[in-house]
Amino acid sequence: MNFVNKPHKKDWIQYTQRPIINQTKLLGQVNKIFKDIQHHGDKALKKYSKLYDHLNIENFKISNNQLKNAYKSLNTPLIHAIQQAKCNIEKFHLAQIEKKNIIETTAGVTCWRESRAIDNVGFYIPGGTAPLFSTILMLGIPAQIANCKQIILCTPPNSSGTINPIILYTAHVVGIKNVFAIGGMQAIGAMTFGTESIPKVDKIFGPGNQYVTAAKQLALNYGVAIDMPAGPSELLIIADDTANPDFIAADLLSQAEHGPDSQVILVSNHKNIISQTMKSISQQLKNLPRYAIAENALKNSRALYLSSIEDCIEFSNLYAPEHLILALKNHRQHANNITNAGSVFLGNYSCESAGDYASGPNHTLPTNGFARNYSGVSLDSFVKKITFQNLTRAGLKNISKSIEMMAEAEQLMAHKNAVSIRLKK
Amino acid sequence: MNFVNKPHKKDWIQYTQRPIINQTKLLGQVNKIFKDIQHHGDKALKKYSKLYDHLNIENFKISNNQLKNAYKSLNTPLIHAIQQAKCNIEKFHLAQIEKKNIIETTAGVTCWRESRAIDNVGFYIPGGTAPLFSTILMLGIPAQIANCKQIILCTPPNSSGTINPIILYTAHVVGIKNVFAIGGMQAIGAMTFGTESIPKVDKIFGPGNQYVTAAKQLALNYGVAIDMPAGPSELLIIADDTANPDFIAADLLSQAEHGPDSQVILVSNHKNIISQTMKSISQQLKNLPRYAIAENALKNSRALYLSSIEDCIEFSNLYAPEHLILALKNHRQHANNITNAGSVFLGNYSCESAGDYASGPNHTLPTNGFARNYSGVSLDSFVKKITFQNLTRAGLKNISKSIEMMAEAEQLMAHKNAVSIRLKK
Repeated sequence: MNFVNKPHKKDWIQYTQRPIINQTKLLGQVNKIFKDIQHHGDKALKKYSKLYDHLNIENFKISNNQLKNAYKSLNTPLIHAIQQAKCNIEKFHLAQIEKKNIIETTAGVTCWRESRAIDNVGFYIPGGTAPLFSTILMLGIPAQIANCKQIILCTPPNSSGTINPIILYTAHVVGIKNVFAIGGMQAIGAMTFGTESIPKVDKIFGPGNQYVTAAKQLALNYGVAIDMPAGPSELLIIADDTANPDFIAADLLSQAEHGPDSQVILVSNHKNIISQTMKSISQQLKNLPRYAIAENALKNSRALYLSSIEDCIEFSNLYAPEHLILALKNHRQHANNITNAGSVFLGNYSCESAGDYASGPNHTLPTNGFARNYSGVSLDSFVKKITFQNLTRAGLKNISKSIEMMAEAEQLMAHKNAVSIRLKK
Repeated sequence: MNFVNKPHKKDWIQYTQRPIINQTKLLGQVNKIFKDIQHHGDKALKKYSKLYDHLNIENFKISNNQLKNAYKSLNTPLIHAIQQAKCNIEKFHLAQIEKKNIIETTAGVTCWRESRAIDNVGFYIPGGTAPLFSTILMLGIPAQIANCKQIILCTPPNSSGTINPIILYTAHVVGIKNVFAIGGMQAIGAMTFGTESIPKVDKIFGPGNQYVTAAKQLALNYGVAIDMPAGPSELLIIADDTANPDFIAADLLSQAEHGPDSQVILVSNHKNIISQTMKSISQQLKNLPRYAIAENALKNSRALYLSSIEDCIEFSNLYAPEHLILALKNHRQHANNITNAGSVFLGNYSCESAGDYASGPNHTLPTNGFARNYSGVSLDSFVKKITFQNLTRAGLKNISKSIEMMAEAEQLMAHKNAVSIRLKK
């Protein structure tokens, strides 16, 4: 972790830089695979499963029995943990259901919004070093609340061609019936175009490596929506002298262990807090199984000593972190000044891993500075909000002059006629 | 308009096709211009203004005086019309402010969402055949309600290098202080990278031709968000025997006059209604100033005779229209079955042009079938919804076992430690 001592404000921007990821250069390669899948369907998928995963897969779909029986491979405390997390995530996302609010903007002119589910959604869950079943809860629960008609899940099989039962159990728990053993760019391509065995979807959700991220970016060009642009995970902590350096160190490490390209930032107006945290990181790091990954991530990471908490918050808003912990005495008050962040954790007992798993809010959040212009996943991500309006004849009359005047000024006379013809008699 | 007589359901999909627009082939050309703007700023902008608009522009920014005095060129009834529209659009979008809703998911675990404005937003308003000042209301009003820090507007100057005063007046009315006389791909490039005179923005909104649309698509790759992918405007009307053919014809023409690539669709379970509407279209068309444009759009357009209103609705959901008029007796009831649409107009007096200008809901809506997976512009488009959580020590304890179990199952031990270390003492 690199210590930065009271940098000038004009130099702050360089300390907000992320490790550079250039997906654009992958787009050509991904597009070739996409074209192949578009034209050859399952045949192409089988080819890429063999090429990239060294597997001969005959049937991508996981059977209903496998989904139903997956629980048998899990221990009871883990099942209870998943149930508690599900319950909290459900409570939080149920509260996001928008009530119909009918507005009469002018007498006789009533307007409102209603939410409708996106019919077909597809989730990508990476395999790799750890089975990220928690993301299935974070995507599946709001999709069920939204009432999406079809939810499918693609995830890469392991070297023996099977899928971790905890992935299957979690999919089953949130009511996903269509799970496919396929990973990487080819999974995203399959969901973009549809093949004989994998349905085309309207929106793709979920994390992935740089190839998956590039493929999601490309899917946009083919009319499929995506949850948000992605980048490596990140955490920023603002700490004052009421913070506990051991807690902060544990949080920074919990983020650093995600991947070697993760980034963690500590910002404080107390030098002591920074130095004690650095010491604690060294001690805690030694005992981590994912020691090497975390150590690499710490190389991309920074501890900034700034003059005041106000400056710390200003820096944080400039950085726009995915996760932000306010280890501050007056955290509620300071929270009002946070303008750019994915999710904010207040006080000394709100650790990021609570939000990663079980407190309720979604953990699919904007990274790489996208917290400036994107929200995290929520119930909103699974619906369209359609506007409705109903005008009576009197209502139309009440605004008719305005419509006619404006249509005429935009030189759109047929727009004007549509009003005039209704009020002629 | 092409008449289609009771097509088989399996053939419906071909009648949902839009005129094909391929922006992808423009991306290379746009990217060249983007790179030039990224590296040469205003100098590049001046070059492209000369090349494409044949104008030597020294200063892109419109002065404050020009904005303030624009009203002098407008007549009073038009000013009143804009004021009434503004008032209704404000009422509708103010109702979209989300109230803070604090949820205690487990005792001691409180979570909520808060909206924060996207700091910097940029609008593109096309010049061309008609000055689309109404779009400035539709974008500027929610941006002001959201409290965006900086709102800029780019619009192409006319051949004499000036901007229509109605554009300037409307910008002034919604409080936009930074208006720039620049159009096309180069305007989108300027807002994507920022130049000496035009600031970089976080999100770009507004309509445009295929070049502007391709440029917005490309801006996404450079980390700028956009309102939604765009395509030509479209309207679908579902009519039963209570509909008025003259009204429907006027509505279809109001959509058709937008551009030669616009599309209008009439769907009915009454052949009479279709034939009478076709007749009325022929009569009304003759008197339109934008006759040629509307006539061309009608060539892309269809009237489908189907067996029942239920079938009409099913077809409409498959088409996913930007605008949908339900000219039906029981429109409220049928509205419940609409799943894919940008904005819905109920009954015989809710003409599309009411919503285009003055009823209140936003007119920036998903086209080209994107109503399947995107919402129209609303207050939500100008904010991020940030999640917050606050756990007491007891709260963390109440969910600690679940977090620890799940972290361990995902092989993320530092995630587990962040909880354990807090509860150790």
